[in-house]
Amino acid sequence: MPILANDPTKKTWLKVPKDSDFPIQNIPFGVFLTRDDIITIGTRIGDYAIDLGALHQLGYFKDIPLTDDIFLQDTLNDFISDGQKTWRAVRNRISEIFDVSNDELKNNDSHKEAVLFSMDEVEMQLPVQIGDYTDFYSSKEHATNVGRMFRDPENALLPNWLHIPVGYHGRSSTIVPSGTPVRRPLGQTIPKNSDQPVFGPSRLVDFELEMAFITTDANLMGEPIPVSEAEDYIFGMVLFNDWSARDIQKWEYVPLGPFLAKNFASSISPWIVTMDALEPFRVDSPIQVPEPLPYLRLNGKHSFDINLEVDILTEAGIPTTVTKSNFKYMYWTMAQQLAHHTINGCKVNSGDMMGSGTISGPTPDAYGSMLELSWQGTKPVKLNDGSERKFIQDNDTVVLRGYCAHKDVRIGFGEVSTKLLPALETIK
Amino acid sequence: MPILANDPTKKTWLKVPKDSDFPIQNIPFGVFLTRDDIITIGTRIGDYAIDLGALHQLGYFKDIPLTDDIFLQDTLNDFISDGQKTWRAVRNRISEIFDVSNDELKNNDSHKEAVLFSMDEVEMQLPVQIGDYTDFYSSKEHATNVGRMFRDPENALLPNWLHIPVGYHGRSSTIVPSGTPVRRPLGQTIPKNSDQPVFGPSRLVDFELEMAFITTDANLMGEPIPVSEAEDYIFGMVLFNDWSARDIQKWEYVPLGPFLAKNFASSISPWIVTMDALEPFRVDSPIQVPEPLPYLRLNGKHSFDINLEVDILTEAGIPTTVTKSNFKYMYWTMAQQLAHHTINGCKVNSGDMMGSGTISGPTPDAYGSMLELSWQGTKPVKLNDGSERKFIQDNDTVVLRGYCAHKDVRIGFGEVSTKLLPALETIK
Repeated sequence: MPILANDPTKKTWLKVPKDSDFPIQNIPFGVFLTRDDIITIGTRIGDYAIDLGALHQLGYFKDIPLTDDIFLQDTLNDFISDGQKTWRAVRNRISEIFDVSNDELKNNDSHKEAVLFSMDEVEMQLPVQIGDYTDFYSSKEHATNVGRMFRDPENALLPNWLHIPVGYHGRSSTIVPSGTPVRRPLGQTIPKNSDQPVFGPSRLVDFELEMAFITTDANLMGEPIPVSEAEDYIFGMVLFNDWSARDIQKWEYVPLGPFLAKNFASSISPWIVTMDALEPFRVDSPIQVPEPLPYLRLNGKHSFDINLEVDILTEAGIPTTVTKSNFKYMYWTMAQQLAHHTINGCKVNSGDMMGSGTISGPTPDAYGSMLELSWQGTKPVKLNDGSERKFIQDNDTVVLRGYCAHKDVRIGFGEVSTKLLPALETIK
Repeated sequence: MPILANDPTKKTWLKVPKDSDFPIQNIPFGVFLTRDDIITIGTRIGDYAIDLGALHQLGYFKDIPLTDDIFLQDTLNDFISDGQKTWRAVRNRISEIFDVSNDELKNNDSHKEAVLFSMDEVEMQLPVQIGDYTDFYSSKEHATNVGRMFRDPENALLPNWLHIPVGYHGRSSTIVPSGTPVRRPLGQTIPKNSDQPVFGPSRLVDFELEMAFITTDANLMGEPIPVSEAEDYIFGMVLFNDWSARDIQKWEYVPLGPFLAKNFASSISPWIVTMDALEPFRVDSPIQVPEPLPYLRLNGKHSFDINLEVDILTEAGIPTTVTKSNFKYMYWTMAQQLAHHTINGCKVNSGDMMGSGTISGPTPDAYGSMLELSWQGTKPVKLNDGSERKFIQDNDTVVLRGYCAHKDVRIGFGEVSTKLLPALETIK
């Protein structure tokens, strides 16, 4: 089935602001609460949230085999389970319904009343129930920076890094959508030159600029997904802020990896942009030397040119863009990550989420965390209000944005915006 | 509400074999498929599986506030969400229904027909949908053994170990109930004296003798659970075999922890034994020196005297008990683990599972893994058929068992029995 929805010449009868992340060529999927307090699955064009549950009840998807309640759900998991052919058919059909030349909905005011909401009047929810969440560590620049700071500057990359898309398991229960504030965590840290840990709020709370992909049911337990098929099982992508408490991490992470330093919160953008929408923005990923083992080899363009940036907003609301990076810098591709994840037979389900790891670019203004931007606090980052940051302060808001752009089309992710609240003062 | 079901003098009108793990004082909870292919929540007395969905429909729980379909579900998550008071009321009521002096069900043949199954005719399922799974590393003997083998024998324990109940995130999607075979994983390993990894089946597949506890909804995101309240949020425990591929682990685990070495499979026993049933078997846990930070301090008996053993069955079915250990050896208690897990505000949900880590005792015959029993393969373990094992061979079956025993009562967990299948010969 061709991806008709990607036609760059297509226009819609809905008003779309110039430079919107959500032209009719995007058609992402999300879950929202309507003004009537009803949860539904929807899409977005311009600044309109579109209720797919209502559209389906009104018969607009009658030619696609879908269960009656597929969009009347509080997560996208079942729709994602329906597989690529269904996602594509639904996205193409939405594109048709809102095409400027199509009058069927455009001229039906009562239907429009039921289907169209202003983004202001809906409340975005977590789009999927995330069964398992894995975070990779696939930016060579980031892994090198961390290795230079914490290990041996001469041998910054660990021996396994060029052979394995290194990853580890994270916690699903604290993944929250954009807009949900996050509290500075309490925990154990180890003072310099001491062997006695102390208890209190983390002093080194950081963002990590990441993206994450959402999978469909991909395999039976015990069966690997070949790298050549892996992309078929990826539904789409979101922006991902993997909050990190660097001082807690330092004390806890040897030998079993980060735990409380990460699992207090992770934040995602609420609209899942489909891999179909990103198709025009494929690019080569970095050349891999040494060549990976055969189960990880894949020719062709398997990375994506996605511009990324992070703003810090002070409590007074003054924004500063602290970094600009790009998803295409990732050394390991999503296809390789998914093939590696399942080579041992690990089962992947609909709604599972896999993070890229911090996406740092080659230059210091493209680093993906305060740890790197301030180089462990030695080079404070100047903000537009005159203040400085080594890490994130209480009541700062961190905003990640991402978009792809060609001459004719811009496909964006919107944003994931999260305010850091002060730590609890006492515990029960 | 008193835990009436624990009365050691109580007898049932059902036939219970001598030394059964499931006397009327146990009353565990599980999920099974009946002979009519219906999924239901149930309990077990002796060798009878008891359909709680049917009992509830017949009115036997009419004095307890329960939703109509609470037991007609394929997981225990909603029942566990109902909280400790409800679990206790239901368990006490089951104890009353099957008490030797109670005729209401005993003398009603049609009801008995609907409610009672032989264990032979039901198929046990995974008892909960596990949202997040965490594995701790809380046996001092195990951590010391691993440190002696892989790091510095003189400083076997890492500096954080005596201060933190070290834990890490695992994968929920591959947790399977007893009886589900597990396939030897493929993956990357690093040959001795080489810096080039090779691909193939893991050669060092191991069991880990663990137990795990299942939680209820315990807190809001951002709010720690105080150590003094933590036990109220633990529903019960199961036996847990945390399958491990030691050679894959060695190559992948620095710096972010074990990943593919663990997530190919983990196996649990199907009956969740409640903390109420384990109450009579409380014991002191080991004295902790240095004293932990205040948020981890808790006086009193917070460990449990649970005898554990592991058998290896060869393909011909010849069993050998390779280790005998006890849950009481754990250095960190479950209350401390849960308090630590949430001190940063990490949210815990109903059906989450937390593993103890490998439970090794103080003597070499009480070690909880082949890695330790064969001391990295240097001391092969002799089996009763004359063969030897350094690690687990294809078509071996590993069986974990556990039980508590006082003079009058034995409360057991049954077993988790898992056959290791050969690796896939080719991948697609």
